[in-house]
Amino acid sequence: MPRTDCPFCAKIAALDQLRADELVCILPHSAVLLGPWQYYLGYCIVIARAHATELSQLTCEDRAAYLEEMCTVARAIQEEFGPHKLNYELLGNQVPHLHWHVFPRYPTDPELLKPVWLALDRAESDEAERRRLRNGRLPAPEIAARLRTRLGRPG
Amino acid sequence: MPRTDCPFCAKIAALDQLRADELVCILPHSAVLLGPWQYYLGYCIVIARAHATELSQLTCEDRAAYLEEMCTVARAIQEEFGPHKLNYELLGNQVPHLHWHVFPRYPTDPELLKPVWLALDRAESDEAERRRLRNGRLPAPEIAARLRTRLGRPG
Repeated sequence: MPRTDCPFCAKIAALDQLRADELVCILPHSAVLLGPWQYYLGYCIVIARAHATELSQLTCEDRAAYLEEMCTVARAIQEEFGPHKLNYELLGNQVPHLHWHVFPRYPTDPELLKPVWLALDRAESDEAERRRLRNGRLPAPEIAARLRTRLGRPG
Repeated sequence: MPRTDCPFCAKIAALDQLRADELVCILPHSAVLLGPWQYYLGYCIVIARAHATELSQLTCEDRAAYLEEMCTVARAIQEEFGPHKLNYELLGNQVPHLHWHVFPRYPTDPELLKPVWLALDRAESDEAERRRLRNGRLPAPEIAARLRTRLGRPG
């Protein structure tokens, strides 16, 4: 059941209002959004369409399907942009509604050996850092469109 | 195939040499190790027994099984220690052999809304912080034994 106090439930209920550069595509168990930090070119957030706070709250079938969709998105990012490595993270510390952060990592990143959260924490208080991390090598609409095509959901 | 230059392949090949407070148990597709940062009481690392750097390198069946084992460990931590939230992270930036960090988060953590990596980064250069984060409310052998029992693998 959607929760009235959950920002991701609200987003899921109004996917048709998202811009084409934010919504990559809708899959059976998840909505795939382009994340805001496109220094990590192709970074996506894979939000469960059903409200749950932990993976154990899903049925075995729904969990397997949701996890496989996350992996499908990861593979699409990998095939489209060829990162060095992917980071897969489901935290929910701030918004406890299941969502995967899929961060591709590139060899040009001087902090490649560290989790992205150190840089993103700096971006909270440093405007130049925020600008650097928000902008990727490509414009967001093109990144979203390329992932959409790669996922077999163009248009 | 195990890699001779991979520290996790070396660990997997010598699980019988691990102390009982490091090895929680061996599952069909993964080895469950108690992580070093037991401020996050029950923190486990779920290492794939086969060498692969990305989830997409596993067959569909092996991937589903490995992911479900990670979820089983997460559920055991949740049931045994009752955290506020779990964080599930597969990074591999330093050791690119599939391994899940399953970090339970507790309401007593003043940084509950943030990823654990900010505190763990401080611990690299701050001995007192390192000591604080390594030690949990319980001794490591007891934590490992309780998880082992919860996972149905006592002894």
